[in-house]
Amino acid sequence: MGQTITEKIFSEHAGREVYAGEIVRVPIDMTIGNDITTPISIKAFEESGAKELANPDGFAIVMDHYIPAKDIASANQAKISREFAYKHDLKYFFDEKDMGIEHALLPEKGLVVPGDVIIGADSHTCTHGALGAFATGMGSTDISFSIITGGNWFKVPESIKVNLVGKPGNCIYGKDIILELIRILGVDGALYKAIEFTGEGVQYLGMSDRFSMCNMAIEAGAKSGIFAVDEICQAYLDERAEANGGLRSEPKIHYSDEDATYCQEITIDMANLSPVIAYPFLPSNGKPVEQAVEDDLRIDQVMIGSCTNGRLEDLRIAAEIVKGKRVARHTRMIVTPATQKILMQAQHEGLIDTLIEAGAVVSNPTCGACLGGYMGILGDGERCVATTNRNFVGRMGARTSEIYLANSAVAAASAIAGKIVDPRDI
Amino acid sequence: MGQTITEKIFSEHAGREVYAGEIVRVPIDMTIGNDITTPISIKAFEESGAKELANPDGFAIVMDHYIPAKDIASANQAKISREFAYKHDLKYFFDEKDMGIEHALLPEKGLVVPGDVIIGADSHTCTHGALGAFATGMGSTDISFSIITGGNWFKVPESIKVNLVGKPGNCIYGKDIILELIRILGVDGALYKAIEFTGEGVQYLGMSDRFSMCNMAIEAGAKSGIFAVDEICQAYLDERAEANGGLRSEPKIHYSDEDATYCQEITIDMANLSPVIAYPFLPSNGKPVEQAVEDDLRIDQVMIGSCTNGRLEDLRIAAEIVKGKRVARHTRMIVTPATQKILMQAQHEGLIDTLIEAGAVVSNPTCGACLGGYMGILGDGERCVATTNRNFVGRMGARTSEIYLANSAVAAASAIAGKIVDPRDI
Repeated sequence: MGQTITEKIFSEHAGREVYAGEIVRVPIDMTIGNDITTPISIKAFEESGAKELANPDGFAIVMDHYIPAKDIASANQAKISREFAYKHDLKYFFDEKDMGIEHALLPEKGLVVPGDVIIGADSHTCTHGALGAFATGMGSTDISFSIITGGNWFKVPESIKVNLVGKPGNCIYGKDIILELIRILGVDGALYKAIEFTGEGVQYLGMSDRFSMCNMAIEAGAKSGIFAVDEICQAYLDERAEANGGLRSEPKIHYSDEDATYCQEITIDMANLSPVIAYPFLPSNGKPVEQAVEDDLRIDQVMIGSCTNGRLEDLRIAAEIVKGKRVARHTRMIVTPATQKILMQAQHEGLIDTLIEAGAVVSNPTCGACLGGYMGILGDGERCVATTNRNFVGRMGARTSEIYLANSAVAAASAIAGKIVDPRDI
Repeated sequence: MGQTITEKIFSEHAGREVYAGEIVRVPIDMTIGNDITTPISIKAFEESGAKELANPDGFAIVMDHYIPAKDIASANQAKISREFAYKHDLKYFFDEKDMGIEHALLPEKGLVVPGDVIIGADSHTCTHGALGAFATGMGSTDISFSIITGGNWFKVPESIKVNLVGKPGNCIYGKDIILELIRILGVDGALYKAIEFTGEGVQYLGMSDRFSMCNMAIEAGAKSGIFAVDEICQAYLDERAEANGGLRSEPKIHYSDEDATYCQEITIDMANLSPVIAYPFLPSNGKPVEQAVEDDLRIDQVMIGSCTNGRLEDLRIAAEIVKGKRVARHTRMIVTPATQKILMQAQHEGLIDTLIEAGAVVSNPTCGACLGGYMGILGDGERCVATTNRNFVGRMGARTSEIYLANSAVAAASAIAGKIVDPRDI
């Protein structure tokens, strides 16, 4: 009986052939915590009476949400993870010294490998599926079970097959495709499902697009998002291996069988997409940019960053658009590179100069404003175009503020115009 | 009867010869507010019934303390200044688009001119005295009086003459000289006095040293600090004029008469100084670095930045020390360039790469952690070496945290060692 790539990953980990709906207990290849969620996991770890981690090299703590500390509470919270990391001599403890957003940093460091089962106490852990891994977010106490035992249990998810056809036009990125999919599915349309992206159109999607798409699978309620490894992915992995002296482990590459079972199939013609803007207050509230232009939406702030769209490609897109121009007088533009490596590379390419000269603030890597942490929180009634992943009420600040989710080209062009515009028109 | 440089500036502004102790009302050349203090000035302005500013081009608002907004309260606070600046079409409104710490940004922009009378709703406004101006901090409501009327009243201050002799040795900077002076004077030793820095040793002090020294005059309680214009200052002014298409106005250069009256004279032999560390919890609590080394002070954080020591020279000093090394495991290092121009220049010189590779976080320009704003707040019991200006209880975070004030070489070397060390020993 044919299997999906997700069923194959679980089968390999369970040591037996398993299918959607089965309950399995499997070893976890990489468990991820951050500065907000890890203290809760540590509390549960300590209450369990455990003394040692089952697999210290399989637990990565990434300090990214409120770091460097924005206040005394976040400073004290950070101490809990630091003390734990030092006590257990964690190999993969990424603090201010090697800052980055967890879902950008771990692939960059070669710590995510095709075929992995990865869990993280952060809902956007599904990002890592872009590398042919099963990756999902869990609660902090579930994470502690994995730290203590080295494994965790899952119901093997059913899969939704998303068939991508056509070649994306100018200014159409992974962000638009996933916003369109979430529009189709709704925010709970993929509950506990794995979204498998496939089809002849995948060849047109770079890794940056794929990370964005898997990242936002959760916004349709999905358990995970996944792309099978292809040449583009392999080239990325080779580059990561070279930069880091090898990947964390040997990749195990799986492909769905032709006769695998899917609970739903959706086709998206990427050639027919306009840039998609998700209006407040749900990521599923996507509209073509033409609608937003008609609605004449004046904006106070643009934020380019986050685990969704804070990669080098996003900075390149933004810099190209703002080069030689100036952010509108009444608008602020904040660019938050996802990792130090991205920040440095962007410097070397002259992107940071271009962004600053156009009037942007370029911050240190951090989750920052995306979750309403710091670095660009919105005041009462302020409107923001953000390349981030959630536009819920109050997500980035005041309850009366509004977030419009978009790709980096829309965001950059809108910063210059001071209102939402179509980047294809400039 | 001979006059001090400060008496001459006030005489020129008052249109008559005035001396220390006299009450004068004079026009203000530049009034400065920031994102924290300006809303209070605006409230007083509006309550006064005034409709227009007496001199819109003489009021600079610099958004530097909590920007980009760290929380909803700071976002809403920032809106007040923005709306005022747009309504009155202020020429010198520096928001996120041209970020910088006010006391670094205004000289950089050519907006501080020798002979000026400058007031700012920020205690470190005295920084600008390094350019031969009278500059002092005032309360926000005093500032509003200046915005409304274009002038303000002062008691012309007596002056303390600080005679600088000798050539500073390796790793001795303006920061050490001012910390030594504050140690001698105490935190209230110069109350309402102008501290005039003079003597043959001035020739060894670059503008970065002089800004640091005038900046911390307030920490001895002084009304102002001042250096007369010399060749070094003139070269700086020429560079600022060239970069900005001229200075804000024509400089009026004054020098103290030989028979001017001083209330006190202090001589500092810079050749005999060690780097000075101001122990918690007063800037006057200076000790030679040798003492700190003996005290074996393990540190959690280093912060290089602020209006005191966040200039390009500070970043150069720090980068040279950390180059090819790595910040100690248990220590964080935060570098906050004072302006976007400094940040970009540091990028071009490769300093940012060096700092990040050593494990530092380099932030956007902001006052940030210095005042306990954001970007590196200290948790309970944490110890920090900071190049900033105040080490009061709780200044950078938790009441049980400790700040040791030092120059950028001590700070950088200590980050690598993980404890306070003498940079001359490495």
